[in-house]
Amino acid sequence: MESITIKDIAKKCGVGVSTVSRAINNHPDINEETKTKIMQVIKEYNYIPNNSARNLKRTESNTIAVLIKGITNPFFNNILKVFESEIQDRKYSFLLHRVEEHEDEIDLAVLLAKEKRLKGIVFLGGYFYHSIEKLKQLKVPFVLSTGGVSEKIDQKYYSSVMVDDYKESYKMTDYLCKLGHKKIAIISAPVDDESIGKLRLRGFKQALIDNNITPNPNLVRYQVDDTLETFSMKYGYEVTKELLQTGEEFTAIYAISDSMAVGACKAIFESGKKVPDDYSVAGFDGLDISFYYHPSITTIRQPAEEMSQETIRILFDIIDNKVNKEHKTFDAELVIGQSTKEYKRK
Amino acid sequence: MESITIKDIAKKCGVGVSTVSRAINNHPDINEETKTKIMQVIKEYNYIPNNSARNLKRTESNTIAVLIKGITNPFFNNILKVFESEIQDRKYSFLLHRVEEHEDEIDLAVLLAKEKRLKGIVFLGGYFYHSIEKLKQLKVPFVLSTGGVSEKIDQKYYSSVMVDDYKESYKMTDYLCKLGHKKIAIISAPVDDESIGKLRLRGFKQALIDNNITPNPNLVRYQVDDTLETFSMKYGYEVTKELLQTGEEFTAIYAISDSMAVGACKAIFESGKKVPDDYSVAGFDGLDISFYYHPSITTIRQPAEEMSQETIRILFDIIDNKVNKEHKTFDAELVIGQSTKEYKRK
Repeated sequence: MESITIKDIAKKCGVGVSTVSRAINNHPDINEETKTKIMQVIKEYNYIPNNSARNLKRTESNTIAVLIKGITNPFFNNILKVFESEIQDRKYSFLLHRVEEHEDEIDLAVLLAKEKRLKGIVFLGGYFYHSIEKLKQLKVPFVLSTGGVSEKIDQKYYSSVMVDDYKESYKMTDYLCKLGHKKIAIISAPVDDESIGKLRLRGFKQALIDNNITPNPNLVRYQVDDTLETFSMKYGYEVTKELLQTGEEFTAIYAISDSMAVGACKAIFESGKKVPDDYSVAGFDGLDISFYYHPSITTIRQPAEEMSQETIRILFDIIDNKVNKEHKTFDAELVIGQSTKEYKRK
Repeated sequence: MESITIKDIAKKCGVGVSTVSRAINNHPDINEETKTKIMQVIKEYNYIPNNSARNLKRTESNTIAVLIKGITNPFFNNILKVFESEIQDRKYSFLLHRVEEHEDEIDLAVLLAKEKRLKGIVFLGGYFYHSIEKLKQLKVPFVLSTGGVSEKIDQKYYSSVMVDDYKESYKMTDYLCKLGHKKIAIISAPVDDESIGKLRLRGFKQALIDNNITPNPNLVRYQVDDTLETFSMKYGYEVTKELLQTGEEFTAIYAISDSMAVGACKAIFESGKKVPDDYSVAGFDGLDISFYYHPSITTIRQPAEEMSQETIRILFDIIDNKVNKEHKTFDAELVIGQSTKEYKRK
């Protein structure tokens, strides 16, 4: 027999899940009659409340740490959610630690691993460029997730779950070129960014060249203001306002995150222009907002949920000695929204 | 002398912060000349890299747990960010644990406190209705943040940081009434929700009554589909689509979260109608998207950052024996966007 869930109990009693929960947890406000009925059904079906407290392993060392660079990037929200759930389902605890922009994450990881007796580590975001000697100091299983890695590091020294940021960025840019756009601005990360920002910028430039368009440095836009978070709506908004003020001609904007694309749209609307009639706007990531924005935003959808699950799956396969190192590159999907259209000379 | 930061070093060298970081961390890709120059400036100004690894206290028990109900609510993203940063700044670790909808958070907290030797706990979201006996089992300092608490629990048994959800919801509804709207729909939490959803619904109804409007039950809208996350864009979208199909007349929608308001707008646009010309739409929370959406969304801005800081401040004041229990209610702000307008009979 399939085990019965709290939802089944609620259904059988004709009440909501939280009412069942109140009955189980001795909520003082619940109607006595309802409570009695619920407790009868629970007994009848032998329902055992799935209480994670009861499932917790009795040892404090079952902890996985997630070390995150760029905690403010909304793309990470969904990922953290899945990490948290997947780690908790395996009855491990989830320790979240922010890595400062200029901080050495390996030093941090080595120390944390020792002090918290970690069983595994996920590095989320950032850019990995450490020497092999350095990487070898980290004895705990680890996986790099959705970040960038220097090509100089041999793949046998780490595990990773990524999309091909270069290829996917190329795909989006090529799409805009095929729509007839020749003057395409990019809202990118600060120029000294060594992470996915650099890869997406490279993909952009190569796609232009392959479409016989010479990249115009005046259309590569970014902010160096340290108070602005890269990849944020505000960043996209400020950079686009600045771009519009330069008077430099363009017909499309490709922002390397959906949040930045939302900010770009807002700046365009505020200037009295329209998306996509005056400017096409495209993003990257495939956040919910790309669908719910008005107009919906053309984007590259990263399979964030699958990537997060795979990250944890690989981490636990390493912990369980099923694999030593593993690499997985996911394909992302071009999702065409209402924010881009064919360019026609006016 | 003020201590010099990595940004100052970057400025003095005419490079970006991450270039300085690469120099410090022996990045293999950096230009040797640049590196030499940076290391000279670092030596000259006696700059000491602020490496949180070096600051970590050498004990594994300095851990604060955040127990979260409703991890998918984007309002919590900013809060978690501030928690994480404030906790890390105090050299404590941050353990994140999701509480199931029907789970008893006190049982969970008592167990976690013991197993992880927690120094403090924040309960984020949810609804507190436990008996005093139950609460007394939890010996570790704790603060309830942005959730709801049953009036039956004496305030001397817990600490809290909240907004007055009833009052703020009343404020928004009253604003819509004063604009001349009489047929106002609310997108609320499922009817058996015992948390802030209930309080916001109550404030809504009272404001209608005080404006001589009889609440119309057909305009109180929610979803019981368990696969839909309350407070999400999708929830607002699906509920509004359903409302539009009923043919029930209304001129304004008040969604009890900004994300739901975004979803509501999308459903309205898809039906060929306009915001605010055909329907006014208002939200709650004051997320970034309420400003960047097109049109910007009228909302109640919760001071999320201050509330989060205050939560951690109170928690550490309890840990440090400076206070025993403390309660703080923040005022929220009505922010008028472009999504609401005066109702004029057509």
